[in-house]
Amino acid sequence: MTSTDDYLDRAVARALRGPARDRNPRVGCVLVAPDGQVVAEGHHAGAGTAHAEAAALAAAGGRARGATAYVTLEPCHHVGRTGPCTRALLEAGVARVVYAVPEPTQRATGGADWLRGQGLPVEHVPHAGAYALVADWARAAALGRPHVTWKIAGSLDGRVAAADGTSRWITSPEARADAHTLRAQVDAVVVGTGTALADDPALTARDTEGQELADQPLRVVVGRRDLPPGSRLTQAPSPALHLRTHDPHEVLRALAQHDARTVLLEGGPTLGGAFWAAGCVDELLVYVAPVLLGAGPTGVPDLGITTIGDAARLRLVDLARVGPDVRLRLVPTAPAVDPAPDPAREHTLVPTPSPQED
Amino acid sequence: MTSTDDYLDRAVARALRGPARDRNPRVGCVLVAPDGQVVAEGHHAGAGTAHAEAAALAAAGGRARGATAYVTLEPCHHVGRTGPCTRALLEAGVARVVYAVPEPTQRATGGADWLRGQGLPVEHVPHAGAYALVADWARAAALGRPHVTWKIAGSLDGRVAAADGTSRWITSPEARADAHTLRAQVDAVVVGTGTALADDPALTARDTEGQELADQPLRVVVGRRDLPPGSRLTQAPSPALHLRTHDPHEVLRALAQHDARTVLLEGGPTLGGAFWAAGCVDELLVYVAPVLLGAGPTGVPDLGITTIGDAARLRLVDLARVGPDVRLRLVPTAPAVDPAPDPAREHTLVPTPSPQED
Repeated sequence: MTSTDDYLDRAVARALRGPARDRNPRVGCVLVAPDGQVVAEGHHAGAGTAHAEAAALAAAGGRARGATAYVTLEPCHHVGRTGPCTRALLEAGVARVVYAVPEPTQRATGGADWLRGQGLPVEHVPHAGAYALVADWARAAALGRPHVTWKIAGSLDGRVAAADGTSRWITSPEARADAHTLRAQVDAVVVGTGTALADDPALTARDTEGQELADQPLRVVVGRRDLPPGSRLTQAPSPALHLRTHDPHEVLRALAQHDARTVLLEGGPTLGGAFWAAGCVDELLVYVAPVLLGAGPTGVPDLGITTIGDAARLRLVDLARVGPDVRLRLVPTAPAVDPAPDPAREHTLVPTPSPQED
Repeated sequence: MTSTDDYLDRAVARALRGPARDRNPRVGCVLVAPDGQVVAEGHHAGAGTAHAEAAALAAAGGRARGATAYVTLEPCHHVGRTGPCTRALLEAGVARVVYAVPEPTQRATGGADWLRGQGLPVEHVPHAGAYALVADWARAAALGRPHVTWKIAGSLDGRVAAADGTSRWITSPEARADAHTLRAQVDAVVVGTGTALADDPALTARDTEGQELADQPLRVVVGRRDLPPGSRLTQAPSPALHLRTHDPHEVLRALAQHDARTVLLEGGPTLGGAFWAAGCVDELLVYVAPVLLGAGPTGVPDLGITTIGDAARLRLVDLARVGPDVRLRLVPTAPAVDPAPDPAREHTLVPTPSPQED
């Protein structure tokens, strides 16, 4: 017998056909007739296209009547370009609605209650796969900006390069592969112009043979200096986004405009330190290689901390061996607080746009 | 039925009555009559006292005749103050010998073979507890000097103190308790005069309430400067050993004279760096606190490494969470090699003295 979980699994699988990097989260919908047969499926193919429910209803035609709609996200109840999904489901004669994740934004919420008010049975059945679809998106919505991970790779004594500036390679091929997997998972990878000029990084996500992975982040360089023609960041797959500012808030606003929900800071110390000081680091990822250097630059700049009582404290949330190296994942013990007034937050991110805003 | 393992367990338990910190390792002996009854037991109570076999034979008197001797270490076959144990076992009429660990030193080896030559059945039955009794001692014998652990406790960015020199506390109470347990396990704890003058450490092994543990290491301060009267290291339980040298080889020779087989370097960077440069670090223990400092001294001094290819490489052998902190245990990838000629090694440590030398 096919269970509610099976139909939601199928809706999640369908949702994954949508774009991983988009203004909207991925949503899937499966319409099931009273006899248990799947009538139609649909997914959201990205901002500007039909919502998952609308796509499924269009595919079903008259067969939607009497069906149960299994949706990964609570149907929206606000008027976008196509009218709310709640009304569309009702008008198509859908008999029952099951959704896996409540709509987390103010603007689109209320869909389940409205449908119940119209006499439709509506059930909320939590589903881990459906939550995973919207996790990054919901987190960015809650933060009011993209989620920021600061990555540092150094020696046991905190050096990120030797005295002569050489740093290839402190960490192992395994740790570098791990970092490339992370690049493929985030929406944007950011370096300062200092690192761009010193290391000429590609910032693409590559496998251990150097082949680019299918998912590539937006490549971003931050700072006022120009990159010389021929720099890897000015070349394929497409020139990196160059933000000529040092202000983390401005950087994050710009990245939000590019639909980034997750951002990885890859260096150097000045960039990471500026984000830390601005309260814009949500996670610290430290790769420690089993190496002593004794001299050379450290990965963390002067943070204005002069005495031990003022040390910046974090909490270890994950510890793993990665090849011969160690990876620590930490979060600040106090939530990253934005000490600077940020007028842009008001209108761009709080209240957040609908998940299915088109 | 009582098995060979049971009798060896009992011999190990008996051995543990001997002193943990002594020139000789702890050894136990159990004499068992043909009917399985334990006739007598004995242990080695420290250099200058009877060997375990001799102690057991003395306790057994005539009942040793026909018994099986279970010994944690192969009976010695060299003439110390009391004559070899091999001969004593034979003369007492012992019918059979079972030992758990072969004698690892040249000088005292050959006991099992000699007894077999005299017609006695002799069996080697490996036993983990018996190996543990002699592990530190055998390791120091193999190294030709005490085994050295360099401990560093710092921040994620490799700082061991803040910019103003304050370092209490970077690591957690749990990590400090772990380090105190380690002090109770090693034979000697060493700091440089710089650390002694700056921090005035007690270097005793204490529990979380500050009470001194039963086992205390030899406290050692290294360097030419005097400690002011009233320094904790000049006080109870007894004044620390003050070695007025900076040469790691001289320090280790002196500590070997004090029967140290395991040494813990607790700071500062100058001391650890000197031992590292001399090839006298066998293990590195790094406590990493989930803290960023951004400024302040690092735990590792300039090692003369200028480029990444020359980085000092180690191998991670253990990784653990200790409270909110992380502990890494590492060993140099190449065995610690002593690059300097060391005339003292010849006569003091190679060939090593008998384990039961009195």
